[in-house]
Amino acid sequence: MPTQTTTNQLTLIANTIRGLALDAVDACNSGHPGLPLGCAEIFTVLYTQFLNHNPKNPQWVNRDRFILSAGHGSMALYASLHLAGFELPISELKAFRQLESRTPGHPELHETPGVETTTGPLGQGIATAVGMALGAKHIAARTGAPLDHHVVVLAGDGCLMEGISSEASSLAGHLQLDNLILLYDSNDICLDGPTSECFTEDVAARYRAYGWHVIQIDGHHFGEIETALNDARQRKGCPSLIICKTIIGKGSPSYAGTSEAHGKPFGKDETAATKMGLSIPTDPLFFVPDDISSLMATRLEAQAKNETTWNQHFDQWRKTHPQNAATWDALAANILSPDALFAIRSAEVKPGIATRAVSHALLQVILTHCPSVVGGSADLSCSDSTLMTAGGILTPTHYEGRNIKYGVREFAMAAAASGLAIQGMIKPFCGTFFTFSDYMKNAIRLAALMNLPVVYQFTHDSILLGEDGPTHQPIEHLAALRAMPNLTVIRPADIAETKAAWIVALTRKNPVALILTRQGVKEGLNTDIDRAQKGGYIVQSEGPGEIDYTFIATGSELNLAIESAAKLTEQGQNCRVISMPSFELFDEQTKEYQAQTLGESRQFVSIEAQSSFGWHKYIGRDGIAIAIDQFGVSAPAKDLATQFGFTVPAILARLTPGVRT
Amino acid sequence: MPTQTTTNQLTLIANTIRGLALDAVDACNSGHPGLPLGCAEIFTVLYTQFLNHNPKNPQWVNRDRFILSAGHGSMALYASLHLAGFELPISELKAFRQLESRTPGHPELHETPGVETTTGPLGQGIATAVGMALGAKHIAARTGAPLDHHVVVLAGDGCLMEGISSEASSLAGHLQLDNLILLYDSNDICLDGPTSECFTEDVAARYRAYGWHVIQIDGHHFGEIETALNDARQRKGCPSLIICKTIIGKGSPSYAGTSEAHGKPFGKDETAATKMGLSIPTDPLFFVPDDISSLMATRLEAQAKNETTWNQHFDQWRKTHPQNAATWDALAANILSPDALFAIRSAEVKPGIATRAVSHALLQVILTHCPSVVGGSADLSCSDSTLMTAGGILTPTHYEGRNIKYGVREFAMAAAASGLAIQGMIKPFCGTFFTFSDYMKNAIRLAALMNLPVVYQFTHDSILLGEDGPTHQPIEHLAALRAMPNLTVIRPADIAETKAAWIVALTRKNPVALILTRQGVKEGLNTDIDRAQKGGYIVQSEGPGEIDYTFIATGSELNLAIESAAKLTEQGQNCRVISMPSFELFDEQTKEYQAQTLGESRQFVSIEAQSSFGWHKYIGRDGIAIAIDQFGVSAPAKDLATQFGFTVPAILARLTPGVRT
Repeated sequence: MPTQTTTNQLTLIANTIRGLALDAVDACNSGHPGLPLGCAEIFTVLYTQFLNHNPKNPQWVNRDRFILSAGHGSMALYASLHLAGFELPISELKAFRQLESRTPGHPELHETPGVETTTGPLGQGIATAVGMALGAKHIAARTGAPLDHHVVVLAGDGCLMEGISSEASSLAGHLQLDNLILLYDSNDICLDGPTSECFTEDVAARYRAYGWHVIQIDGHHFGEIETALNDARQRKGCPSLIICKTIIGKGSPSYAGTSEAHGKPFGKDETAATKMGLSIPTDPLFFVPDDISSLMATRLEAQAKNETTWNQHFDQWRKTHPQNAATWDALAANILSPDALFAIRSAEVKPGIATRAVSHALLQVILTHCPSVVGGSADLSCSDSTLMTAGGILTPTHYEGRNIKYGVREFAMAAAASGLAIQGMIKPFCGTFFTFSDYMKNAIRLAALMNLPVVYQFTHDSILLGEDGPTHQPIEHLAALRAMPNLTVIRPADIAETKAAWIVALTRKNPVALILTRQGVKEGLNTDIDRAQKGGYIVQSEGPGEIDYTFIATGSELNLAIESAAKLTEQGQNCRVISMPSFELFDEQTKEYQAQTLGESRQFVSIEAQSSFGWHKYIGRDGIAIAIDQFGVSAPAKDLATQFGFTVPAILARLTPGVRT
Repeated sequence: MPTQTTTNQLTLIANTIRGLALDAVDACNSGHPGLPLGCAEIFTVLYTQFLNHNPKNPQWVNRDRFILSAGHGSMALYASLHLAGFELPISELKAFRQLESRTPGHPELHETPGVETTTGPLGQGIATAVGMALGAKHIAARTGAPLDHHVVVLAGDGCLMEGISSEASSLAGHLQLDNLILLYDSNDICLDGPTSECFTEDVAARYRAYGWHVIQIDGHHFGEIETALNDARQRKGCPSLIICKTIIGKGSPSYAGTSEAHGKPFGKDETAATKMGLSIPTDPLFFVPDDISSLMATRLEAQAKNETTWNQHFDQWRKTHPQNAATWDALAANILSPDALFAIRSAEVKPGIATRAVSHALLQVILTHCPSVVGGSADLSCSDSTLMTAGGILTPTHYEGRNIKYGVREFAMAAAASGLAIQGMIKPFCGTFFTFSDYMKNAIRLAALMNLPVVYQFTHDSILLGEDGPTHQPIEHLAALRAMPNLTVIRPADIAETKAAWIVALTRKNPVALILTRQGVKEGLNTDIDRAQKGGYIVQSEGPGEIDYTFIATGSELNLAIESAAKLTEQGQNCRVISMPSFELFDEQTKEYQAQTLGESRQFVSIEAQSSFGWHKYIGRDGIAIAIDQFGVSAPAKDLATQFGFTVPAILARLTPGVRT
């Protein structure tokens, strides 16, 4: 739609968005009318004037991305997508928040055309957008392709209060992401009342401190919104914050400007009164004036043409830059090639080192063989072993760097990694100590919910990290991640299993967490790259007859299982040892394979230097879990192994009480 | 020590701290010399000039608190505590990071006299300090007592990069906590290299944006440090940030000013070279000059006198303000009185409402009967039902308010709640939606590690919250919290069990998480306030003979267990129903009670609208877990119950496949 669209037309569109949002929220008797009413002008300008995209091809690679970080305002987005011509018919708006509709309560990736990421948990949309903007810079730098779209985020007071917005915005300022525009819906109201009761900082000054360009406007003034967005688009060398002063629930006679507008259906009377004030019909519901439909149809044509023009430009670029185009294609393929698979399988790794060090060795191979892989760490690359040495550091003057220095910002790192993954040409991994997966937890969850192929490298995986003590020693973390749907957790025991873990991580399309040791591990455990990918497999078979003890162990404790079994075998016991690097992979196997692997046994024993929580699924009610169901302490690893019973004699004493071993 | 202490003496102390830190780190061959060397002058001024405390009584209520948020620099703190006369002999410094020493790798509350909170996970020390400063303001306002100490935090670049520092500092600025002083060890180096690679924001401007007073000084200049601290102490109406420009590893010929200094032992040669440059003897190790000992002895006397003077002043105040003194004593007692217990037990609550609403009703009773209880919410009090209506809001002009508006800052809220709890006169609770416990996770962990009596009210506890969809529907959260040591998780089924949950929460000295529904729950479940406190108990006994089905359920699903059992009983099956509001409380019972309660059964069945992870401990390998091991979807609760099998017919179909129900 050209800028000559009249203010009257824009007002009509804004009020139509308001009407649609009110009707949808009333229809399902739940949802959030406050933001759609307060941001209707912003959405109008975005979807009729600003965003360079093609609703008929929501996957166009150079489209501007729009992220609603304040995901509860989803109806504003759905109404805009509908009006803009995305494949979201009015019937879907009528089915807002209903089973199997494309209009869930909060926007969800893969559910709705035009929705670029899942939002709702506040603040994370900003960090994911930072990842998307950074990803675009990286791909453009790697390939030289004319990828020049913008990422626009709309966030509210809640997002801005969340710490992750600070982490992400500080990082974006540092990385000079001038393709990032943050619209801040500043309405002075949060869920519990006026922001004067909890949020009185100077947001503009804070963002200037991060190195951002800051603009403040009247968020209901079409001209100011458009001018600010265009100013932000032109700005080079830094991201832009547009502080839009708005009135929450604008148009509602009773609730405008109050927290009452935030998250409750208005109901028939207030909705009718609101519509009347806005000069939109109260009947029929879900009303869209014909004028708008024809206006938007015109804009659709222009947008399709925009894409065509860019595609021609892109094709031209491909022809004139065949080598760069080949790089583009390699990134776009984003697969584990047979060549890469072979390189990982056959990589020579020094025996006896920590699994984090094994992973580090493999990452050097992955760097050269898997072009889509981009890593990073929350200021621990020296220790979490994530640095791909020859990959270079990603900086504002070297966006092609393969290693991202996220700083000590775990939560933003995880959400940004999701942003890197969404577009499809980057396979991101990121790392920190396993304990600090806590800081990232909800971002891992969103990656799992979106089924994004992000890899997390978590090192220092048990009390056996030693002296750093209980604040750094994970206990409950394996259970916490294993309980999360869609996440594959792998704790390899040695070189072969670490190779298997990376092969799985680089192959799967869901997020994968690699859980690695700080300390050296033993080799010679009869592990296997292929069988390990089944999640659980027999590494030491029993003799004929009934099995006395079946050990199931993971990671650095597999060795203890094998040694304990050996001792018991000497004593005439019949023992089986199962390596179980991944519960999730094992649970994906056939029931027969699972039953065959676990078998029947007089006594099941799990050995893992973490919480026992969750193990009884395999070892049963009467199984013995050699585990740690308390916090650790600060001491050398060897002393801790003794203290917490992770030695062969201590294990044998647990299994055969009263018998001297 | 009076300010006339000469610069030479101060230098000697600073360098002695450096020497002790180097020796301790070398001795155990692990730890972090960079901060102790870089902040030795700051510690010297704090412990010889500034902090108003009494090392001989580290529990003096009006002592200044010092928090080392950058907990990895623990040796600077231990060395200072030793020199200052705390009960930390040199033998403990020699046992740095060893089993059973008082000098763990990171500072731990309860382990070391003079350590005020557990730190290490970056940024949290700042938020906990905010809680402490707020707690002091609150107690002073409630009682009028002459409680006027300060809380001083030392944080590094890592802390300042973490989002929680932003949340906490924004909140502290809003709350005008002028008893809070943040020293920022700004050395331009983080673990992975120079901060220029990841952290280039203008921290001073950022803190001014939060409403803080900001001072920048040379962190190695005694005079500047002292002046800045005194300036901060005098400043009224806002917290103060002192940016101390320092050199990490200062004094080390090879590592000063580089990230090499951060976290590795220097080893014999570099330590010797460093000591020589600082004019401290290389032999013996752990050297403390006699001059320092006598200087500190003088200061000890002065400090003991300070406490005596304040105590006299306090006693005088008690005499002249008997009513206020009674309030003080009531806060200090911080117990669940028989009167309060009776009030909670006998509270009349409307049947059929959500357990969050039951809790809300109980909180109104708790407000009047439990003076130490102070609540708060991350901007959800209208929805997480945490508001104690007659308690007033805590504001800078009304610190006595019993409800804290934390804003949308879950992580800072949780860490601040720990700070509120540590001093002992406040029993804090805080609330948000259960899903967002993810944002708080590591702060809950630290509260558990410290065994602090914090209560978390988590509402909207399953997919049955309905339309808000999978981003808001907890799945793996019960497992994640149940796996955490020292945390008691309670998911009550109805009014009686919610009463039991609060009685447990107000009685125990460890953290307790209450998991509550959004939706109404049925009554008439044969629950019991007393038996529920055992964590698991039989609510419906079987008939004579072998038990066919034993149901174990929690929260809103207990009703489904009872109804399913009733149907099966009609079909001639013998059924037992166990309510299991708390795994942890049940696991604390005698083995006999546990065995008696669980009994033997042909089939165990758990019913809980969350992940099955962890349930097999009770239901065994062959138990049937009616659970949700995938993400939810956005839809009305009723539709979700059907979709995910949480109806009696669906449950019966799972139990007796092929049989029409």
